[in-house]
Amino acid sequence: MGLCQTWPRLRIRLPVLQACGLHSAAVPTPPHWLAERLCLFEELWAAQVKRSTNIAQKERRTIKISLPAGQKVDAVAWNTTPYQLAQQISSTLANTAVAAQVNGELYDLDRPLETDCDIRFVTFDSPEGKAVFWHSSTHVLGAAAEQLLGAILCRGPSTECGFYHDFFLGKERTVQGSELPVLEQICRELAAAALPFRRLEVSRDQLCQLFKDNPFKLRLIEEKVTSPVATVYGCGMLVDLCQGPHLRHTGLIGGLKLLTNSSSLWKVSGAPETLQRVSGISFPTAEGLQAWEEWREEAELRDHRRIGKEQELFFFHELSPGSCFFLPRGTRVYNALVAFIRAEYARRGFSEVKTPMLFSTKLWEQSGHWEHYREDMFVLQPSGSDRPASSPTDHSTLALKPMNCPAHCLMFAHRPRSWRELPLRLADFGVLHRAEASGSLGGLTRLRCFQQDDAHIFCTPDQLEAEIRDCLDFLRSVYAVLGFSFRLALSTRPSDFLGESCLWDQAEQALQQALEEFGEPWDLRPGDGAFYGPKIDVHLQDALGRPHQCGTIQLDFQLPLRFDLQYRGHVGALERPVLIHRAVLGSVERMLGVLAESCGGKWPLWLSPFQVVVIPVGPEQEEYAREAQQSLQAVGLVGDLDADSGLTLSRRVRRAQLAHYNFQFVVGQKEQSRRTVNIRTRENRLLGERNLTEAVGRLLELQNTRVPNAEEIF
Amino acid sequence: MGLCQTWPRLRIRLPVLQACGLHSAAVPTPPHWLAERLCLFEELWAAQVKRSTNIAQKERRTIKISLPAGQKVDAVAWNTTPYQLAQQISSTLANTAVAAQVNGELYDLDRPLETDCDIRFVTFDSPEGKAVFWHSSTHVLGAAAEQLLGAILCRGPSTECGFYHDFFLGKERTVQGSELPVLEQICRELAAAALPFRRLEVSRDQLCQLFKDNPFKLRLIEEKVTSPVATVYGCGMLVDLCQGPHLRHTGLIGGLKLLTNSSSLWKVSGAPETLQRVSGISFPTAEGLQAWEEWREEAELRDHRRIGKEQELFFFHELSPGSCFFLPRGTRVYNALVAFIRAEYARRGFSEVKTPMLFSTKLWEQSGHWEHYREDMFVLQPSGSDRPASSPTDHSTLALKPMNCPAHCLMFAHRPRSWRELPLRLADFGVLHRAEASGSLGGLTRLRCFQQDDAHIFCTPDQLEAEIRDCLDFLRSVYAVLGFSFRLALSTRPSDFLGESCLWDQAEQALQQALEEFGEPWDLRPGDGAFYGPKIDVHLQDALGRPHQCGTIQLDFQLPLRFDLQYRGHVGALERPVLIHRAVLGSVERMLGVLAESCGGKWPLWLSPFQVVVIPVGPEQEEYAREAQQSLQAVGLVGDLDADSGLTLSRRVRRAQLAHYNFQFVVGQKEQSRRTVNIRTRENRLLGERNLTEAVGRLLELQNTRVPNAEEIF
Repeated sequence: MGLCQTWPRLRIRLPVLQACGLHSAAVPTPPHWLAERLCLFEELWAAQVKRSTNIAQKERRTIKISLPAGQKVDAVAWNTTPYQLAQQISSTLANTAVAAQVNGELYDLDRPLETDCDIRFVTFDSPEGKAVFWHSSTHVLGAAAEQLLGAILCRGPSTECGFYHDFFLGKERTVQGSELPVLEQICRELAAAALPFRRLEVSRDQLCQLFKDNPFKLRLIEEKVTSPVATVYGCGMLVDLCQGPHLRHTGLIGGLKLLTNSSSLWKVSGAPETLQRVSGISFPTAEGLQAWEEWREEAELRDHRRIGKEQELFFFHELSPGSCFFLPRGTRVYNALVAFIRAEYARRGFSEVKTPMLFSTKLWEQSGHWEHYREDMFVLQPSGSDRPASSPTDHSTLALKPMNCPAHCLMFAHRPRSWRELPLRLADFGVLHRAEASGSLGGLTRLRCFQQDDAHIFCTPDQLEAEIRDCLDFLRSVYAVLGFSFRLALSTRPSDFLGESCLWDQAEQALQQALEEFGEPWDLRPGDGAFYGPKIDVHLQDALGRPHQCGTIQLDFQLPLRFDLQYRGHVGALERPVLIHRAVLGSVERMLGVLAESCGGKWPLWLSPFQVVVIPVGPEQEEYAREAQQSLQAVGLVGDLDADSGLTLSRRVRRAQLAHYNFQFVVGQKEQSRRTVNIRTRENRLLGERNLTEAVGRLLELQNTRVPNAEEIF
Repeated sequence: MGLCQTWPRLRIRLPVLQACGLHSAAVPTPPHWLAERLCLFEELWAAQVKRSTNIAQKERRTIKISLPAGQKVDAVAWNTTPYQLAQQISSTLANTAVAAQVNGELYDLDRPLETDCDIRFVTFDSPEGKAVFWHSSTHVLGAAAEQLLGAILCRGPSTECGFYHDFFLGKERTVQGSELPVLEQICRELAAAALPFRRLEVSRDQLCQLFKDNPFKLRLIEEKVTSPVATVYGCGMLVDLCQGPHLRHTGLIGGLKLLTNSSSLWKVSGAPETLQRVSGISFPTAEGLQAWEEWREEAELRDHRRIGKEQELFFFHELSPGSCFFLPRGTRVYNALVAFIRAEYARRGFSEVKTPMLFSTKLWEQSGHWEHYREDMFVLQPSGSDRPASSPTDHSTLALKPMNCPAHCLMFAHRPRSWRELPLRLADFGVLHRAEASGSLGGLTRLRCFQQDDAHIFCTPDQLEAEIRDCLDFLRSVYAVLGFSFRLALSTRPSDFLGESCLWDQAEQALQQALEEFGEPWDLRPGDGAFYGPKIDVHLQDALGRPHQCGTIQLDFQLPLRFDLQYRGHVGALERPVLIHRAVLGSVERMLGVLAESCGGKWPLWLSPFQVVVIPVGPEQEEYAREAQQSLQAVGLVGDLDADSGLTLSRRVRRAQLAHYNFQFVVGQKEQSRRTVNIRTRENRLLGERNLTEAVGRLLELQNTRVPNAEEIF
């Protein structure tokens, strides 16, 4: 499809856009560079088609293909495509496959096979398939931006949940939210046009010729393209530098939605340039998109910022950007989480400590944070009280701690240590401050001020394996109570690792051994560890199936060196301990947000800031209701009272359910005279009349055992 | 006693001093100014004696004296002295009285009475008596410093626990610790000489004449002496500017000890001058001094810094001056205190919240802290992340909070409030930072970083009385559990009070009414309140009888104005709440120090970091001992194990007692087979064999009920 055929179609739409009041500087005629690029592409494409037809005719060679089920079939070199093979297997497969894996390499479905190979088909259901699908979709978005906005395209990758495209509109022009629907409409039309993706191999010179009018692509070619042959893809009027693979044609995109517009920074070379970023998501079918939209609505309903506001858990204030104010109910959840971890600490031989928040920059120099982390630290102005300093140590600058580890190293080192004291497990809920950029702050997910269930284990190399096993067990217990599944990954030494190889060997073996014995599935990520030690990453999944990284187990061979930590070993010599950084909840604030979303505001009893509401039937029972409330409060349970005589009983019961109170204690004349309460759960299950004291005792028991389903097993 | 008689006595001692190797530049002959001052004093004294004898002889007037018991006696004007009246009552009284209160004014015992009057005698046992006694003692110290060191005297007040004298020795010379014994010896000799204190009334001119060689006194005269007639006192060779009264003579000082030497700053005028300060204490008898020295030794043994080190509760580090590192045991005590207050909060309708630590200085401007408290605040350098600020609020400087109140005001104001929500009691254990001068830091008593059991009550004026009553009850409950007695004082509006008189009237009445109903004794301190509201000060007494100010109840009419706090009242109009600041423990850190000293390291079970040590009789019982330890730890009790097979059982039992473990669980073969433990208390009381599970349960119960005497009632 040539330029001449396509462009008039677009021009037709322009009056419509103007009628909508959109101020888009829509492009009335194709710019010369687009025409030139397209002409060159078509020319090269014709040459490539001719070339490969020639090869195919000349060779006429039969090749052997192994299909996924183990079946072997014959095919014709330079002719048979993966799509044709998929059709042989089933039309469903041919319709749902998005790419093929040929001897491990991803191929376009229409790319002819060259040699004997194993072939496997990739569908949208797999992560690789989604990546191909969304990457193809971002080409459609790029084409639409080029046509509607005259955009100079930059990069358009797929992400974990969709795709985006970065492009340049000149220094002044930005994309407006009101332009997204138009852009989306063009994307849909381009998809409906079922434009094929055409893969073209070009030389470096041809590449530069194709993109001579796009300085961003030229810079990318300069920085990233190292081989003499590169690939570009054509799709309708769009020609883009790209590795592929892609869908066979845009018609396979059954549903597409653009989501956000924002700015992004181009930092590849010289002075940064501000680009426009539009993000979106797409699905093979319109139904798939609709299902996702419903899921997203549910997730938005569960957004922790929304729940935090509705349930009065917390709020933010411009006078303390990046720090959270926890209201009484939020503080209750927070304290319940901390108490949970404290109880585990007692059982598991961790010792809680409290360390200062302000330290001389000398400490941060010693720990290495001053060199590597200074930009993210809050540093103090020299204090008035230190000016006529009476002690020389007061002269240095102070900084707020971003991490607890150096303080724990000081604690380990403050007196001589013996092997008898190891493993020493120091836990600290100290308040940490990190100077996150204001643009990156959002709800409880990223804060400047937070606390962690942070602990540091000082142990001998021999104790490493057992300690790691215990850490993993700790994680499993806590996540089980919180209702999360999780997945582990071991990251081993990177190329720039510091320290002795034999220590790394021993440690990686210990970690691997511990993971094996632990019995949960885990992934190996060779070379992904930090330069100071290997680590185990923990990815948990919340109730909506969304991933979060909260817990971590990180070994550190460097801090013990930097702080010259030593203990007197069995035989009397001084030895160096190994340090394990570990956290289960991670940031307590963030975990609170994850939990709020995961339970959708319906807190389990033990975390709930809405445990019980006492509802008197009439004003005569108000005094007894207040008594019931007090017996709940006396043992530390949340007991609220809804004695609003302006509302009927059923309205108040409904109100309690909407507020997600785990239990309602309704008290009428009968209950008052018998000192009982009539109990309902938030799912409106009637538990009937129970003795007040017994009911309070049972709730306390259910709270203290941290069951997830108190309403069911009351 | 003239100069000529005294001086040779001093000169005799000089060779002795030199033999001691002391480098004191002892004064070989009296300096000319001393001789001149003494001569002038004697001259004026002779004139005054003559004058008053004349008056007495001329008037011969009888005056009526009311004695303390209500008895009335006649006396002779300008002749009869309080001392003579005391002798009439009893020789004991005459010997123990240190001054007289004549119509409310303190008189020297030898000062003739002039008119009809009520008289009351003051002894060393009362605070006023101690002040007179110690003030007299500091004259002796001044005289000794003048004679031994050629000191230019400055000020010498009594303090709450003794006295000190500030003097000048030239710019280079300081007092050495090694000089204190010599100075003390001279003090004792001056005391033994029973030198009378002679009260002389002089004109301002005479005053300046007497002190023409002492620039400090001249400056004090200029700044402080406003009346045409002033008093000076002569005592031996010393003449000092002084209001009195004093002891009759120095011989009444039966025991005197000098304690410290340090420097102090003279700031009355112009450029500050460095003075020397020597402090001491004195008693009517040598036995009194000895008893005090024993008490002091006990107090030193109980010094919280010493206990903190011995018991490994906490330590300090030069890289974080003024902040405490709490080790596992200290953290345990800390957390137990916080948990105690949290339990009271639940019972008493307080809502715990968590607020940020860093706030824009705009907040501190609004609260008034920036104007009044800026010097004591830690202020941050502009942060890197805020430079390319995406939000205009990020531009301002941040400071660490020294108090929670402004954050709680933001919380009150973050949404509209109704009268139904009041009283709103917000409690916060937030970490506070105050830039205390490095010289004032000491142990846990004064820190730069600490937490308070801080709460702010927002209420209507009508609710004030009930809230204050509840606050007082809260104080009483907590102090009872901690074993403290306390005393209350109500401070009312000062002359520079801000706000409406009628609000002050109402509030002071409410406070007074609440104190009356509370039923504990209290003192009224008119005019002692803060400019922003009246307050109740709480002074507690620890087990050694030492006073501490920890709790406070402070009204505030200003912050609600500054933050424009409002609530919708009953009738729909917007009204302004009253704010009560209150704390019971005060700084948790400081309270931990007070408690450590008060219990002398023998912690009550519920606070104890040494609850139980399990001691296996032999290695065969070690496994069972470990099991017993784990059943303690599983319920959150401190269970340590002493399985050191290198020590005999009795040595380990002794070691446990020295470490102040509340309980010891000794387990031998019999205990193992029956699953019991043999229990001893730290006072070595044998409680005998108990079932392990029951013993753990009982301990948990005793811990949770926070009894002070778990060892007695186990």
